[in-house]
Amino acid sequence: MHKSRLATIVIDCQTEQIDDAARFWAAALGRDAHRLDDPAGANYRDLKGPSQEPTLLVQAVSHPSRVHIDIETDDVDAEVARLEGLGARRVQPVKTWWVMEAPTGQRFCVVRPQRADFNEHANVWGDAGEKATKD
Amino acid sequence: MHKSRLATIVIDCQTEQIDDAARFWAAALGRDAHRLDDPAGANYRDLKGPSQEPTLLVQAVSHPSRVHIDIETDDVDAEVARLEGLGARRVQPVKTWWVMEAPTGQRFCVVRPQRADFNEHANVWGDAGEKATKD
Repeated sequence: MHKSRLATIVIDCQTEQIDDAARFWAAALGRDAHRLDDPAGANYRDLKGPSQEPTLLVQAVSHPSRVHIDIETDDVDAEVARLEGLGARRVQPVKTWWVMEAPTGQRFCVVRPQRADFNEHANVWGDAGEKATKD
Repeated sequence: MHKSRLATIVIDCQTEQIDDAARFWAAALGRDAHRLDDPAGANYRDLKGPSQEPTLLVQAVSHPSRVHIDIETDDVDAEVARLEGLGARRVQPVKTWWVMEAPTGQRFCVVRPQRADFNEHANVWGDAGEKATKD
């Protein structure tokens, strides 16, 4: 058994000026942009919103700008295997997460738990990938 | 004065098989896919989640697959003008909404209110675009 759910909306911005990018998106969405505590998070700004909503991140990237979603899970290997069974493919591992591509073409990431209420509200999957409960 | 906030994450899928696309994303995210009541919504499926979260839609499109966000507002013209002031540009009007492009390159839409708690939780903007309150 493992758990997963939608964790984060990542606004990927092709820029070397992460604060300029975050300033636009924060003002557009009426939020405040915060640096992450994690020193590995220099290329990210968290647009803090209501705690029960998915996290919203602005990320500086070198590829063309886009938006992608992250799925959070307590077992990255099991979740990647489940998603492969649904038709997604592995693109590459990065640090603690996997970049995958949906059968419909969008890239997304499978990451470790991000949101504070993950355990309480994530979907629970059986060993054959069947849904055991949902929030 | 007008209001706005993040309304919807739209998973744009370049496909003529909207139900196949929705089936993948619903299973990936542990949600159920629903047709919209609106007869104009044949190209959309709503992946229903917790009511306090942004709406998650799968849309069949003819352009390459991507993900975009919608901003909901009680005054589309005023919100489009506010976002232009922040550096976004108008791309084209569609039915009751506007397609815009962020200074960081992503397209997004400015739409009429979508979420049930819009009035209660949206950001309030003064006539000069300054934030009057937030949720």
